[in-house]
Amino acid sequence: MLRTSPLAALLAAAAIAPFSSTTAGATPTEGSGVAWDIVEGLTTEIGPRMAGTEAEARARVWAEARLKALGFSNVKIEPFRTLAWQRGPENAQLTAPYQQPLAITALGFSVPTPAGGLKADMVYFPTLAALEAAPDGSLKGKVAFVDHAMRRTQDGSGYGPYGNVRRMGPSIASAKGAAAIVIRSAGTDSHRMPHTGSTVWPKDVKPIPAGAVSNPDADLIARIAGRGKTMSIDLTLMGKPFPDAPSGNVVAELPGRDPSLPMILLACHLDSWDLGTGAIDDASGCGIVTAAALAAQKDGKTLRTIRVLWSGNEEMGMRNGGGDHYAFLHGGEKHAIAMESDFGADRVWQLKMSLNEDNAALGEKIKAALWPMGVVSYSGRAHGGADVGKIIREQNLAVIDLGQDGMHYFDLHHTPDDTMDKVDPVALQQNVDAWTAVLKVIANEPGDIGKVAAEEGGE
Amino acid sequence: MLRTSPLAALLAAAAIAPFSSTTAGATPTEGSGVAWDIVEGLTTEIGPRMAGTEAEARARVWAEARLKALGFSNVKIEPFRTLAWQRGPENAQLTAPYQQPLAITALGFSVPTPAGGLKADMVYFPTLAALEAAPDGSLKGKVAFVDHAMRRTQDGSGYGPYGNVRRMGPSIASAKGAAAIVIRSAGTDSHRMPHTGSTVWPKDVKPIPAGAVSNPDADLIARIAGRGKTMSIDLTLMGKPFPDAPSGNVVAELPGRDPSLPMILLACHLDSWDLGTGAIDDASGCGIVTAAALAAQKDGKTLRTIRVLWSGNEEMGMRNGGGDHYAFLHGGEKHAIAMESDFGADRVWQLKMSLNEDNAALGEKIKAALWPMGVVSYSGRAHGGADVGKIIREQNLAVIDLGQDGMHYFDLHHTPDDTMDKVDPVALQQNVDAWTAVLKVIANEPGDIGKVAAEEGGE
Repeated sequence: MLRTSPLAALLAAAAIAPFSSTTAGATPTEGSGVAWDIVEGLTTEIGPRMAGTEAEARARVWAEARLKALGFSNVKIEPFRTLAWQRGPENAQLTAPYQQPLAITALGFSVPTPAGGLKADMVYFPTLAALEAAPDGSLKGKVAFVDHAMRRTQDGSGYGPYGNVRRMGPSIASAKGAAAIVIRSAGTDSHRMPHTGSTVWPKDVKPIPAGAVSNPDADLIARIAGRGKTMSIDLTLMGKPFPDAPSGNVVAELPGRDPSLPMILLACHLDSWDLGTGAIDDASGCGIVTAAALAAQKDGKTLRTIRVLWSGNEEMGMRNGGGDHYAFLHGGEKHAIAMESDFGADRVWQLKMSLNEDNAALGEKIKAALWPMGVVSYSGRAHGGADVGKIIREQNLAVIDLGQDGMHYFDLHHTPDDTMDKVDPVALQQNVDAWTAVLKVIANEPGDIGKVAAEEGGE
Repeated sequence: MLRTSPLAALLAAAAIAPFSSTTAGATPTEGSGVAWDIVEGLTTEIGPRMAGTEAEARARVWAEARLKALGFSNVKIEPFRTLAWQRGPENAQLTAPYQQPLAITALGFSVPTPAGGLKADMVYFPTLAALEAAPDGSLKGKVAFVDHAMRRTQDGSGYGPYGNVRRMGPSIASAKGAAAIVIRSAGTDSHRMPHTGSTVWPKDVKPIPAGAVSNPDADLIARIAGRGKTMSIDLTLMGKPFPDAPSGNVVAELPGRDPSLPMILLACHLDSWDLGTGAIDDASGCGIVTAAALAAQKDGKTLRTIRVLWSGNEEMGMRNGGGDHYAFLHGGEKHAIAMESDFGADRVWQLKMSLNEDNAALGEKIKAALWPMGVVSYSGRAHGGADVGKIIREQNLAVIDLGQDGMHYFDLHHTPDDTMDKVDPVALQQNVDAWTAVLKVIANEPGDIGKVAAEEGGE
């Protein structure tokens, strides 16, 4: 507490002249426009919308109404059934050598601990590789703790390798006989905000309870491990899989002047993790693609049809999410190029393209359109994302990625902190402007947009 | 989720060469020295240590052992009984017009809601003055929500007026008939971290359940209020007062060459709020004053004795905390100057002094000692803080405040985020250096250090 004692403060406050009751309270950052209004609306009127929940269903109804109101055609909800997961009560305490409550959250597809909590010794592994090197059976009855050192990168490239602690750590720990696993969150912040996210259970592995603690809690565990004393934990994670849940995509179109030409597909996802309100992951993506589609047609129809896909169950949909359902329903339709926005609301800084070699001139036009914005080109391939991955692979589509600045994305990703106040309206509009510049080129491209060979060794 | 699909990531990871199992995991910021070790030890080995709890008792034992090990004399635990408060289960959801979970925490001295939750309409007030202006009885059966706009200030001066929303809002709402109150946290961050802290119930006011939501949640409530729709809340706050709890101070001395001279008193507090681990509030203060006392005697005893007070129950001790108990036990002893460190671990930037006018030369020596560190002088008075307030008032003591940079203090204050990783070891050491420079002057002052008249209208 600061030096003002409450009593002194009460006395002092009595002398403060009252404000008008119409004076505003705190003023959140305010933006405007189609993208901002979508982020504001989804986070305020829907909030968390985890796949398979009634909230996700409300979000679909909200999306359908909003897309119709914005003038889109052929607006449709396309329901599907999906594998999902339901969070339960969760908490953890270190019980030895020191008593410390831990900020923890279950990973998606964790199975429940016993209702009274799992009380066990906890073994510290500094890396995923150290866990892999543990002798088989050595973790029997114990909880594995896996540490790592994910750091901020502009292109988000730390999430692949360090995110594997979350994706692969649980199944490796289970194979070694562990009763449960706790990991350092796949995140780059220093707040008491554990990062959730799905883990993966290969078919021959028995699922175990799996949770992530925040970085400050992982720091604490690392300090205690450094003292060489035995750690014990009392762990409660009651979340469980939810095998047949309702989800759905929302699709909408801005028809082009020549509907016979293969269309441009723009995707984002409507579902969000339950801890935050899904502002950066991925209401912003839906705001960006939708606003850009409209802006590209502001002065008249584009040559090609632009379709937007607000996908359902991206977050837990590795087996049967919205991207797969889109390909299942629309695999017979002709697509030219796929693009996806699912990396927050910070500025576009990098252009990635996978174009047919005959489309080099188109590539140069795209680069030129982004040149005034300072966007740099990447020499490797573009990959799209989970919502367009299946249709890209099935149709060997051309792909354009507009890479966003990821320096702070993993501060917020999959945490309670994924809220509206984290979206900078100026950066959000820069995204819309970059997408619009690209769309004006590709949706008006009269020439053939060729297929692109699948990457060697890719999915 | 980022573009890497979990399956692709699993495949990619299989190709990563394993690290040595001895490779370190994440490496927390590391410091060294007496102050750092106290902060590290208290946060790691004790953690949260709320007044009246068994954890606070363990902290006293830890403190006694540490102060003895550091070479202090007359190290003593001085137990007392205190009014405290116990947190219970707490959660809240907006139920209308939208369903949104809220990040909430109870304020100290809140009374419990009904166990099944309080379901009521919630009325938005943009300011404390607007709440005060509400007609008597107009809030009957309702929950009041009070917003405000506390902003970062270097000297922390926003905490007086905006902190009054927490200190005074609950009693004002109760007097208007409210069933409960929820406030925007008295904090300057944008994380889903509600800030706890004590509220004050004047004798004629009936206590009601009182909680604070995080700034992002308050932003959401403000946005919904702006839509003009009726809000309803389902509120559970089970915390309750705990009227006769054990607490205690820990005192220790570095005797001076002339023990007959009035001593120098340096204070911090040992208790912390339960949500974090009390790193900046106030393990850092204890680290700073203790390290500085030792450093001031590194080259031999100072003229005057230096006593350190690690106070119990500062956070909930407005009626009978550690500062009052210290004055009760030690009011018969002669003190020269009191100083307190309870504003985090950021750098000292400002010097405040309340000295007798005959001690102008001493004041100049103190200024000169801090001159090389760029510390600026404040023209008003110094006030000490809650742990030295009572003895200052009783003995009309001279006071020196070393004002710390408060730009980020209220980002963390009374939240789960008050953890070790927030302490910058370089800034912490700057504090120790500044305190040491001052102590070398004042603890070696041979002349009379005079009494200072109480401030007009002050406590």
